[in-house]
Amino acid sequence: MGGARFADKLAAAVARNDSLVCVGLDPDPAQVPDAVRARPDWLTYFAAGIVEATADIVCCYKPNAAFYEALGEAGQVALRATVRAVPDDVPTLLDAKRGDVGVSARAYASAVFDDLGADAVTVSPYLGFDTLEPFLAYRDRGVFVLCKTSNPGSAEFQDQLIAADGAWRPLYEHVAQAAVRANQHGNVGLVVGATHPEAFRNVRAVAPDLPLLVPGVGAQGGDLAMAVGEGQDGHGAGVLISSSRAILYASRGADWQQAARAAAQDLRVAINGLRRTRAG
Amino acid sequence: MGGARFADKLAAAVARNDSLVCVGLDPDPAQVPDAVRARPDWLTYFAAGIVEATADIVCCYKPNAAFYEALGEAGQVALRATVRAVPDDVPTLLDAKRGDVGVSARAYASAVFDDLGADAVTVSPYLGFDTLEPFLAYRDRGVFVLCKTSNPGSAEFQDQLIAADGAWRPLYEHVAQAAVRANQHGNVGLVVGATHPEAFRNVRAVAPDLPLLVPGVGAQGGDLAMAVGEGQDGHGAGVLISSSRAILYASRGADWQQAARAAAQDLRVAINGLRRTRAG
Repeated sequence: MGGARFADKLAAAVARNDSLVCVGLDPDPAQVPDAVRARPDWLTYFAAGIVEATADIVCCYKPNAAFYEALGEAGQVALRATVRAVPDDVPTLLDAKRGDVGVSARAYASAVFDDLGADAVTVSPYLGFDTLEPFLAYRDRGVFVLCKTSNPGSAEFQDQLIAADGAWRPLYEHVAQAAVRANQHGNVGLVVGATHPEAFRNVRAVAPDLPLLVPGVGAQGGDLAMAVGEGQDGHGAGVLISSSRAILYASRGADWQQAARAAAQDLRVAINGLRRTRAG
Repeated sequence: MGGARFADKLAAAVARNDSLVCVGLDPDPAQVPDAVRARPDWLTYFAAGIVEATADIVCCYKPNAAFYEALGEAGQVALRATVRAVPDDVPTLLDAKRGDVGVSARAYASAVFDDLGADAVTVSPYLGFDTLEPFLAYRDRGVFVLCKTSNPGSAEFQDQLIAADGAWRPLYEHVAQAAVRANQHGNVGLVVGATHPEAFRNVRAVAPDLPLLVPGVGAQGGDLAMAVGEGQDGHGAGVLISSSRAILYASRGADWQQAARAAAQDLRVAINGLRRTRAG
C-alpha cells in the first residue's frame, strides 16, 4: 500500500509497465512446484517469487482471500507478507467478495484497508449499496462491485429482468447503474466475467468510465479479444485482465519464475495487440 | 464442531436448552469491559466468558468473521480458540457471508468447515446457486443463504420484482425458492432480517421448512413478536433469533458475565412466550 489514490496508482502502473495484466494470487498447495512446496515458508516464498518475476510487466496483484483462508493461520500470516512483498507502486486488490450490514461492513472495510493495507477490494452488491458505504468511504482505495460473474450459473439471478424507467434491464445492469451513482470519489469499479460478451457491451453502455476487473480468461474459457475490445475505455485502458493459474503454475520445475514471467508477458502482448490506443 | 449433522445438533440444542437464542459473537474492542480489554488475551477470554455464561440457555453461537478479521492475526487466532471454546453439543455458525466461483468457493468452504471447524456458515446468493454447491456438498454442515437482509437498503435489489411462472415475486423470494430446491441434504437455511414483516410471511410461504436465521432484533429495531410469530415452524422451532450487542455488552462492569446471561435469559423467555408449542 502507499499514500496514492488507488485510481492514480493503477493508472501509473498501467502506463509505466504498458500492461493491463492483473495477476491473481491463488496459492494452491497441490499446484505449486514440489521444490517450493517443500519449504516451510512456501506460501510467502511462492507469492513473493511470482511478484519478483512479474512486477515490471503487470498493473495489479489480486490476492484471493479464499486460498489464504483455506490455509489457516499460516495463510493469514502469508497474506500479510504477500501484500507487503508487492512494490509500493503496484496496487494490490484483495479478492474477498465481502458484504455485510452496518457495523460488520465497517469491520470488513477496516480489516481489508486498515489492517491488511490492500489498495482495493471486491465486494458483493446483494445487500444493497447502503452496505457498501463503509468501503466507499475510503476515498483512496478501490471498491470493485460484483456485477456479472464468470460462472455458468451467474444468469440465475444476475440476468433476471427488472423494470425501471420504462425499460427492462437485467439485474447486473441495475448494479452497474448503482455503481455509477456511488462513484462520487472516483473509487468504484465493476467485476465482469470474460465469459459473457453481451454483458460487456451492456455494462459499458451504462458505465462507460468505471474500471472493469475481468476474470474468466484462460481456465474458464473467456474471450480475451472480446473482453479487451468491449471493455477498454477510450484510452485503451479501464480494464484489468485477471489471470491466475495460467501464470502461477506455468511450470512446476525449477524455472517456475521464468515460466510465470513468460506467461504474463504473453498475456500482456496479446492484450496490447487488442488495445485501441496505448497509455504509455 | 462434532460428528453430528448440523440440523440434528441444532434441534438437540433447541430442545435441551428450550431456546431459540443465537448469540452473535462480535468482539468490539471499544465495547468490551475495560477490565477485560486490559488482558493481553482479551479477545479469546471475552468470547469464552460469554460462552461459559450462556451455553445452557442458547441454541447456537454465531461468530462474526468481520470483527475477528478487523483484529488481524490476533483475531484469527481468537476465532479458532472461540470455536473450540463452544461446547460440542452447541453448534457454531460462522457469519461470513462468503460467495465466490469454482475453486475459490471450494477454498472458502474448506476454510470454514475443514480448517476452522464451524458447523454452519452464511453465504451470499448473488453469484447463483451453482457457486454454493461446494458448501452444500458438506452434508453434515449448515449453509444459511442471505435472502432478505436487515439493513434499510436491502430493498434496492432484494425487493425488485421478477416474473416467473406467471407471477411477479421479489428477488428474495426467488432466492428462497432456489434454496428449497438446493436443500437436497437437509442442510440449507435462510437469513431473513426481523425488520421486514412482509418478507417473513412471503419467505415462509415458499420455504415452510427451512430454518431461518434472524438478525435485526434489538439494535436494528426488528420486531421480535413478528419474527417468532411468522418465522416459527409448526413445531415452534425453525427460527434462530440472533442477538449480539444486547447480550455481549449488557454490562461493562465486573458483572459482565452475569449481565450477559441475564440478557440472554430475558430474550429466551420473551421468545418462548411467543412460540406456538415447545420442543422440550
